[in-house]
Amino acid sequence: MNTILIKNITLIDGSQKDILISNGKFDRIAANIADKAEITIDGKDKTIIPAFYNAHTHAAMALLRSYSEGKSLQSWLNEVWKKEATLTNEDIFNGSRLAILEMIRSGTVFFADMYWKHKSVIAAVKDMGVRANVGITFMDTLDSKTCEENMEFIKSFANDDKMISLSVSPHAIYTCSERMYEKCYEIAHSNGLNLHTHLCETQKEVADCISKYGISPVELLDKLGVLDKHTIAAHCVHITPSNADILATREVNVVHNPCSNMKLASGVFPYRLCKTAGINIALGTDGAASNNSLSMLQEMKFASLLAKVSTDNPTSLPAQEVFQWATTNSATAFGLKAGVIAEGYDADCLLVDMNHVSLVPNNDIVSSLVYAADNECINTVICNGKVLMQNRIIEKEEEIIAKAKKFIK
Amino acid sequence: MNTILIKNITLIDGSQKDILISNGKFDRIAANIADKAEITIDGKDKTIIPAFYNAHTHAAMALLRSYSEGKSLQSWLNEVWKKEATLTNEDIFNGSRLAILEMIRSGTVFFADMYWKHKSVIAAVKDMGVRANVGITFMDTLDSKTCEENMEFIKSFANDDKMISLSVSPHAIYTCSERMYEKCYEIAHSNGLNLHTHLCETQKEVADCISKYGISPVELLDKLGVLDKHTIAAHCVHITPSNADILATREVNVVHNPCSNMKLASGVFPYRLCKTAGINIALGTDGAASNNSLSMLQEMKFASLLAKVSTDNPTSLPAQEVFQWATTNSATAFGLKAGVIAEGYDADCLLVDMNHVSLVPNNDIVSSLVYAADNECINTVICNGKVLMQNRIIEKEEEIIAKAKKFIK
Repeated sequence: MNTILIKNITLIDGSQKDILISNGKFDRIAANIADKAEITIDGKDKTIIPAFYNAHTHAAMALLRSYSEGKSLQSWLNEVWKKEATLTNEDIFNGSRLAILEMIRSGTVFFADMYWKHKSVIAAVKDMGVRANVGITFMDTLDSKTCEENMEFIKSFANDDKMISLSVSPHAIYTCSERMYEKCYEIAHSNGLNLHTHLCETQKEVADCISKYGISPVELLDKLGVLDKHTIAAHCVHITPSNADILATREVNVVHNPCSNMKLASGVFPYRLCKTAGINIALGTDGAASNNSLSMLQEMKFASLLAKVSTDNPTSLPAQEVFQWATTNSATAFGLKAGVIAEGYDADCLLVDMNHVSLVPNNDIVSSLVYAADNECINTVICNGKVLMQNRIIEKEEEIIAKAKKFIK
Repeated sequence: MNTILIKNITLIDGSQKDILISNGKFDRIAANIADKAEITIDGKDKTIIPAFYNAHTHAAMALLRSYSEGKSLQSWLNEVWKKEATLTNEDIFNGSRLAILEMIRSGTVFFADMYWKHKSVIAAVKDMGVRANVGITFMDTLDSKTCEENMEFIKSFANDDKMISLSVSPHAIYTCSERMYEKCYEIAHSNGLNLHTHLCETQKEVADCISKYGISPVELLDKLGVLDKHTIAAHCVHITPSNADILATREVNVVHNPCSNMKLASGVFPYRLCKTAGINIALGTDGAASNNSLSMLQEMKFASLLAKVSTDNPTSLPAQEVFQWATTNSATAFGLKAGVIAEGYDADCLLVDMNHVSLVPNNDIVSSLVYAADNECINTVICNGKVLMQNRIIEKEEEIIAKAKKFIK
């Protein structure tokens, strides 16, 4: 039995409790727990908060952080695609571990990935002890052998440790045919998996779709019957009010990626529209090539400040709301019973150092986490009841960094 | 004689050199320096970059970080003003030290302050060993005794250590009369000081000015003759093309504060307009009450991403350009020969840990600093040839934090 007892830890509401974690769950949260545990952690001057769930990224692209910067979108994409074509299984493994290292250091214990060579991604996830939803990516240009292998992999995937789930990931409407989306949905549906896709990221995507199909991307996917509560739609920057209604009615999970949308000048996420429609909004960093960070703390600040300035309203997207996007909403989108510190929930949490300068003085912990916190304030990361980082030390760090640095020739 | 020798340090251009610092200046930068120095620092796996110069802030407001969040602008201001009225000299001293601690930890060695109880601010600056331009703030509501004392203080200020300069700071056109601006300019001009003011921060400010004076705030200040190359104008969000031309012609230094402008929903800084006009643009964080961070690394990212998305162009405000705003442009605005690593310049610099996960792999150091870097990658901070932080350790940290925490009752 795997047990952790956290003594005298402060909760977000300011109260102080003991927390017993066992078998990967929050077992008991009470004023004074006398049980013995394998690991005891002193909660003095620390606050426990849910860990972060990154709902859309391309982890191994950490290797392409700051690669080919300062170009127009198309020249940048061309350079990135050329480089991506050279990535080996080993590169993807090393790149994914680099990304996961960065995520743990910034408090993220789960990521929804959409990339290539999924076996290397899965190996990295297992190696690092985090959770992930690994997308098996499909495009029309994929050769039929790989396509077939991917389908077989999905059917035979045995989720042995419950830390990893799969998504079927048709890349986007401009890279996948209608038939491809239907096939992807079919296999996702029959295997009880999510369907994870890019949607309405740029104006060009929408204009091209309307010119090709006569309807918007959201209407197209709805016509194909692939939108439901197991669908994860990343971006959704360029949607109309009626698109938002469709997404809400179908209970699609929309992932907002503010840094990437701003950096690539894709556009401004329609916060008010999505909120009014009642859509489940989750938060993601997108890949490090277009962000170029994987910090969900920073992503929350970008989301909130962008919503405020774009709606001319400083009360838009308050700290508490965007904090939910990054925790419960993201967890819910992927079917996890996680994202809150409560008995019976997955024991994923962060112990935050309340003496870190960025949180002092403590006028409001959630506001400070969203608007002010350095990643450095995250002292301890626990995922599935196991300590992944304590006092900002991660055992494998040096080796991961050394391997990733070799990527630059 | 105060000397530091940094051995085998990587410069931004990728070359490796030794750097000798003496008497607060970069004395020699060469392939192999054999001189002895009081302190020798091993530059292995580190890159030397200029330190940051925060061109507009209200340091002691660090005490009000995350205070009274989630309100409309006016209710928030009312709450903040009420709280500010209770701040003692000791609070300002402790709050300024807290802010400076945060700045050092995020690589900032100079800040232009605009606040109250300037003697306490100056004491904090001296105590912490950074540089500052301390604004002596004026408003019409200031009682005449304080006003007179401020004028006297400015006239008699002996800049004993060259680390501190003063600005005369009429707060804004909605709190200062025409006569007040003229008086402020007169005393600034006759004492060789900067004039530092808020300008065109909100749409309301502009509308009220036009309705009261029949001209825009920029035209008003120009009419009063207070705009010149010693003027620091913070915000300038709501300016017209002809306003921009006036600011450029008068060589006014404009300070962009992206986080604050976004968080308060003040508006979007007109990047293209200011750049086209040829204005010297510097970067500032504004106070921690409206940011809520003082990290210039983060501020650079916000500035760049906001410029990109607001101009629909991913090549707007490239990393190299915003890096200059935060270093040379800000230093130049305040008359410092600083902001670059070059012989004869002020020895203000950061040693950045190239093994920090946020900078790995090193595809492009400046892009990674702007778009990806955690404050934690800043290993060493040197200001005026003195080490303020090494291996992220600052001697006085614990005491400063303890005092600032007491502020919450």
